Amino acid sequence: MSVKPRVYLDYNATVPLRREAREAMIAAMDLAGNPSSVHAEGRAAKGLIERARGQVAAAFGAEGADVIFTSGSTEAAALACAGRGLHGAAVEHDAIRAWITEDLAVDRDGRVQMSDPGRSVLQAANSETGVLQRLPEGLAVTDATQAFGKIPFAFNWCGAEMAMISAHKLGGPKGVGALVIRRGTDLAAQIRGGGQEMGRRSGTENTIGIAGFGAAAEAAARDLADGVWTGVEKLRNILESSIADMAPATIFVGKSAARLPNTSCFATPGWKGETQVMQMDLAGFAISAGSACSSGKAKASEALTAMGYDAATAGGAIRVSLGPATTEEDVLRFAEAWGEKQKKHRARAA
Amino acid sequence: MSVKPRVYLDYNATVPLRREAREAMIAAMDLAGNPSSVHAEGRAAKGLIERARGQVAAAFGAEGADVIFTSGSTEAAALACAGRGLHGAAVEHDAIRAWITEDLAVDRDGRVQMSDPGRSVLQAANSETGVLQRLPEGLAVTDATQAFGKIPFAFNWCGAEMAMISAHKLGGPKGVGALVIRRGTDLAAQIRGGGQEMGRRSGTENTIGIAGFGAAAEAAARDLADGVWTGVEKLRNILESSIADMAPATIFVGKSAARLPNTSCFATPGWKGETQVMQMDLAGFAISAGSACSSGKAKASEALTAMGYDAATAGGAIRVSLGPATTEEDVLRFAEAWGEKQKKHRARAA
Repeated sequence: MSVKPRVYLDYNATVPLRREAREAMIAAMDLAGNPSSVHAEGRAAKGLIERARGQVAAAFGAEGADVIFTSGSTEAAALACAGRGLHGAAVEHDAIRAWITEDLAVDRDGRVQMSDPGRSVLQAANSETGVLQRLPEGLAVTDATQAFGKIPFAFNWCGAEMAMISAHKLGGPKGVGALVIRRGTDLAAQIRGGGQEMGRRSGTENTIGIAGFGAAAEAAARDLADGVWTGVEKLRNILESSIADMAPATIFVGKSAARLPNTSCFATPGWKGETQVMQMDLAGFAISAGSACSSGKAKASEALTAMGYDAATAGGAIRVSLGPATTEEDVLRFAEAWGEKQKKHRARAA
Repeated sequence: MSVKPRVYLDYNATVPLRREAREAMIAAMDLAGNPSSVHAEGRAAKGLIERARGQVAAAFGAEGADVIFTSGSTEAAALACAGRGLHGAAVEHDAIRAWITEDLAVDRDGRVQMSDPGRSVLQAANSETGVLQRLPEGLAVTDATQAFGKIPFAFNWCGAEMAMISAHKLGGPKGVGALVIRRGTDLAAQIRGGGQEMGRRSGTENTIGIAGFGAAAEAAARDLADGVWTGVEKLRNILESSIADMAPATIFVGKSAARLPNTSCFATPGWKGETQVMQMDLAGFAISAGSACSSGKAKASEALTAMGYDAATAGGAIRVSLGPATTEEDVLRFAEAWGEKQKKHRARAA
């Protein structure tokens, strides 16, 4: 009896480390210096960071903007938003929601209604549903964490003054990201001390992680240009057709809006998302209910609730997110396994 | 003609990555999951972090305390100190000085006079001079960044409620550290969102870096127990004797106080530290003037100024910091090369 390999369909939670990132990180392990040191060893480490900064800026369409390396999007969100009294919607990530007044309305397709862009935050793409937003000119902050690497996106043309991005969402290491800001924008440091990152973010730099971020961003931009995500989108659509054929009552969230090419969020009212995640995990598939950060908490998706879905639907949603390594076989095997569980659920519920 | 290899004598700035950390990091690169995900891939990543947390706690004598992983000591300092109105001395690291009222006196040997420990910060060891402090019971915060791994130190016995530590000072990667706090201590998160690290520090964890930190801490504790730093101390003393023989007027800072075994800070009044660093760099030696974070800034060491040294002395100091890989030949070659430069400096100054 052959054991089937596990199938990873949780790319919006995190992405396996890319070969390019791995190689850059292992090479960076040999650089002994502190980037703030003025001697040769320090200058070599500094050079590696500046090279990665250029790679990230180029991949993100942010040439000429300031790329401030952080420990990830969550830290970047605090740096961009804390103490500024910004407004936003309940579909934002918890890392943004911690800092905003949540008074912007969301329609059934997940689109946010914005009145005062200069005092607001708006995500480029939602992590749970994949729904894309149109970013208004003069937007204070955008969370580009899920968009970066999956869709064409250029910071310099997006209309926002600041954007946060994360390495591990595009195949870099976890624990490194950046806040990208238009040059000349005021920004008070939150982590202070040695004055690294032009005084905006002190602390000895995560040189190995930053090297991995740069390499991953460069490779991700190349994949995107090569049309890799068009193939991913076809598989996502095959997945949704298969699910809809087997379970016609399934609700596909945000399907009539523009979405990320890899994301499918679908709900079976009354069948808890957490239960589905656990059942599919035992069957060999990694998916999620809600965003990874809030998974483990048994509560209905607040993003779906904000879109107007009732508790039974919001609580019965799962997210399946594909990546460049996903195959048609993966998708069909998942649909088949999910269909069997769904049939059992219906039998129990009847 | 043979080219002599460079000699790295700047271990207090940062330490080359240990073999154990490197191996743990490369192994961690294969774990694809997000530690917050509930599926098998997520649980595996979570398990790796919890293993590292145990390794760090054991090495730091902090069993039963909470180890909150951060992006380094600088972030941990902000988490421990921001908004608390703590008091401290000018010999603290800039990452601490950013948050304190600087009103504690320092004597000529670098020892800080403390009146109200419960509202004060005190470093365990100074990065520039190596001077050790006696930590009073009930101390609010200690910066153990330089002490951890170089001298016997146990958080649970040190008297402080919180301590910050950094992986790269003991052979782990740059960009990862921790705030260690007595269990039950109140702490308001600064980076908020997904609720990782028991709600004290949100953001997807730097799993690869944390794995490296755990492995490095474990290996560093073993080295310490094996007496490795006693050998380092002998070489430091050989260095200081050689320097004193060649240049009897040299001022050894903090020499009459208890110091880290690897650190020597010595001054030649009127011969700028930055100049010495550059001359020694060209001669093949990596050393520093002041802490790495503030090097590059051409100002006199504020730590030495706080100890009562005049500007010519404080500005004429360098730091030589040794590590387990340093050899007697390294030290003697350095002393000889420094002696030649010093002779030329005296000739010019005469």
